[in-house]
Amino acid sequence: MKKYAVGVDLGGTSVKMGFFTTEGELLEKWEIPTRTENGGTKILPDIADAVRAKLDEKNLTLKDIEGVGLDLPGVVLPNGTVNKCVNLGWEVMRADDVLTELLDGTNVAVINDANSAALGEMWKGAGIGKKSLVMVTLGTGVGGGVIVDGKIIPGSHGSGGEIGHMPVVEPEDEPEACGCGKHGCLEQYTSGNGIARLARRRLAQNNDPSSLRAIGDFTAHDVYNAAKAGDEVALQITDKFAKILGKALACIASVNDPEAFVIGGGVSKNGSIVTDGIIKYYKEYAFHALKNTDIVLAELGNDSGMYGAVKQLIG
Amino acid sequence: MKKYAVGVDLGGTSVKMGFFTTEGELLEKWEIPTRTENGGTKILPDIADAVRAKLDEKNLTLKDIEGVGLDLPGVVLPNGTVNKCVNLGWEVMRADDVLTELLDGTNVAVINDANSAALGEMWKGAGIGKKSLVMVTLGTGVGGGVIVDGKIIPGSHGSGGEIGHMPVVEPEDEPEACGCGKHGCLEQYTSGNGIARLARRRLAQNNDPSSLRAIGDFTAHDVYNAAKAGDEVALQITDKFAKILGKALACIASVNDPEAFVIGGGVSKNGSIVTDGIIKYYKEYAFHALKNTDIVLAELGNDSGMYGAVKQLIG
Repeated sequence: MKKYAVGVDLGGTSVKMGFFTTEGELLEKWEIPTRTENGGTKILPDIADAVRAKLDEKNLTLKDIEGVGLDLPGVVLPNGTVNKCVNLGWEVMRADDVLTELLDGTNVAVINDANSAALGEMWKGAGIGKKSLVMVTLGTGVGGGVIVDGKIIPGSHGSGGEIGHMPVVEPEDEPEACGCGKHGCLEQYTSGNGIARLARRRLAQNNDPSSLRAIGDFTAHDVYNAAKAGDEVALQITDKFAKILGKALACIASVNDPEAFVIGGGVSKNGSIVTDGIIKYYKEYAFHALKNTDIVLAELGNDSGMYGAVKQLIG
Repeated sequence: MKKYAVGVDLGGTSVKMGFFTTEGELLEKWEIPTRTENGGTKILPDIADAVRAKLDEKNLTLKDIEGVGLDLPGVVLPNGTVNKCVNLGWEVMRADDVLTELLDGTNVAVINDANSAALGEMWKGAGIGKKSLVMVTLGTGVGGGVIVDGKIIPGSHGSGGEIGHMPVVEPEDEPEACGCGKHGCLEQYTSGNGIARLARRRLAQNNDPSSLRAIGDFTAHDVYNAAKAGDEVALQITDKFAKILGKALACIASVNDPEAFVIGGGVSKNGSIVTDGIIKYYKEYAFHALKNTDIVLAELGNDSGMYGAVKQLIG
């Protein structure tokens, strides 16, 4: 094992890059823009250039790194193939082989971003010391990463941890469609967008007073701030969020019985009010042997993906 | 690896025993009663005696078998401890150590019965050639066994695959309690007892004609027979069963994305009418990448546990 590795968290607008020791210490991080034009053909060359430039700056070469771990917002099949990545403009491709080629044979490991976040939190965040956990990323959508016996479950169609699309509400009870085309997916109620949507729908039902009415285009963060200040409507929404997610986690626990659930993503930044609500409902819905499973906030924030990508690389 | 192994499926009323090759060929099977009196203290000595008697009969000795695989109807913790087994009268105990002692140091592996059935079906039944599957056992209750990468997920509290207690109906909508104390568990609607219960409840709602009314204490099997004959009430019940289970499997698929679901237990003996219904609703509820997951009937019937116990033993 060499001393250094690079972790890359490839998103639709920016690429977060981290220079790590292979022990998992993040020495330095930086960002470059994600150029999605022309089918995203610039993205991997840009990453390769950024890796080389950083090494030059440190008077190191490609021979000094164990390799590059790369996470991305798309399905990665068990064999490593990226099965389309709409946000990046990519069709089906072998991102690992392309980046290896661009970096003169350097090892590259590719992993889905939600899975990478889970691995990162297990390695250096809220899941340290655990061998099994489920990470729930509550961002614009809802992602999941499932770890059993220290390893990510990629799934036979690359959809392991695709918990954002668990059916939680009957289709006939949900007029709006999820991004996936179904009606009633977990992400429609528990993502940042979902929470704001629920609040807007609730406010339209009647004229109950709420501080949210004064904010034009409010977000989930505004809803939580209002709830913390005692706003009755906001409290109803955060309670509904917690009930739906607590029940979903009770379902997930009945499948894999993980040691912990780690709650990350933008919504989790509202703090313990989020986990307190989830825990309350989780305990109501969970099988008795599962009631004490840890439900904790993520600790690595936006860096979790980079950590996980490095962990995926070094195994 | 020695040539033979013994598989033992320990149930609350009888012990099914199988003499196997370590290649997984079942050469002979027999049964002994389960003596649950006196805290179940006779059970393991009875099994040990039965193993010795069978070996004597075949002019073999304990040295000729790789060991004994034992499945039982209770929680087996990841370290092998049996965490109570109400049906057997057992408190917390090390069944493996006790049986090893009774059999002069013979290897013993202990596994939960639902997990064992899953492993058996993967090894020699409906899941041959697959590395990941979820077995759903629809019997008196509902059990589950989850296999990823060829291995059972026992769960951090020994409750991996405890899918019978997934919350599928809101507690306030279910007046009767599940055996576990909760209200609205999967097993209340999709076990043999659950199906019959749903039908009885439905018949009490009004006077719709149904052939089931002529049968005093009808079973799930009677409900399926009536459905096959076109009985409208029975068809409503089997449809409700399929909808609840299809949705639950769509939830499970979003967690682990298995290659297949294997449907076993007494209810599955009603044949393809069972899986056809589940598949219909599974496709409605599942995330698009997961819609084509196989949903198939189990093939080993009551022998699956013995097969799985042997597989657990030999690894």
